[in-house]
Amino acid sequence: METLGYLAGILTTIAFVPQVIQIYKTKSAKDISLAMFLLFTLGVTFWLVYGISANAVPVIAANAITLMLSLVILFFKYKYRKSV
Amino acid sequence: METLGYLAGILTTIAFVPQVIQIYKTKSAKDISLAMFLLFTLGVTFWLVYGISANAVPVIAANAITLMLSLVILFFKYKYRKSV
Repeated sequence: METLGYLAGILTTIAFVPQVIQIYKTKSAKDISLAMFLLFTLGVTFWLVYGISANAVPVIAANAITLMLSLVILFFKYKYRKSV
Repeated sequence: METLGYLAGILTTIAFVPQVIQIYKTKSAKDISLAMFLLFTLGVTFWLVYGISANAVPVIAANAITLMLSLVILFFKYKYRKSV
């Protein structure tokens, strides 16, 4: 069942990769909600701390990478803000 | 520490609400990656099953609602596909 946790973590983590690629290619992020990614990034940070304290390895691994990807999306949202 | 899990879950769950509202208001979802939300929805489904099997209540609660919200975003992505 740990395997399912890893699979879940891999999916919800790599999910952000096509989003990062799409914004990078189109240079447009206007339909991306800034509020969504601010809340999401904060939440993922808390999931990471929760995972560490609960010693839940899939939660830790998934959220560490998701945190980096969501920070990239926030950066893109800021970088391409003129396209709003 | 369960509290931190709930707080994390609440944040990563409500994060999708402003995204749903934004797409609903603008009728535009072209910058939203379809691949992202397909992978994400599948991943959240797996998280839900993982949470149930691990009896991790914050994981169950958060992912049940996140699943519904990500399905709404997928529906919007389909509904407003002409704005691509």
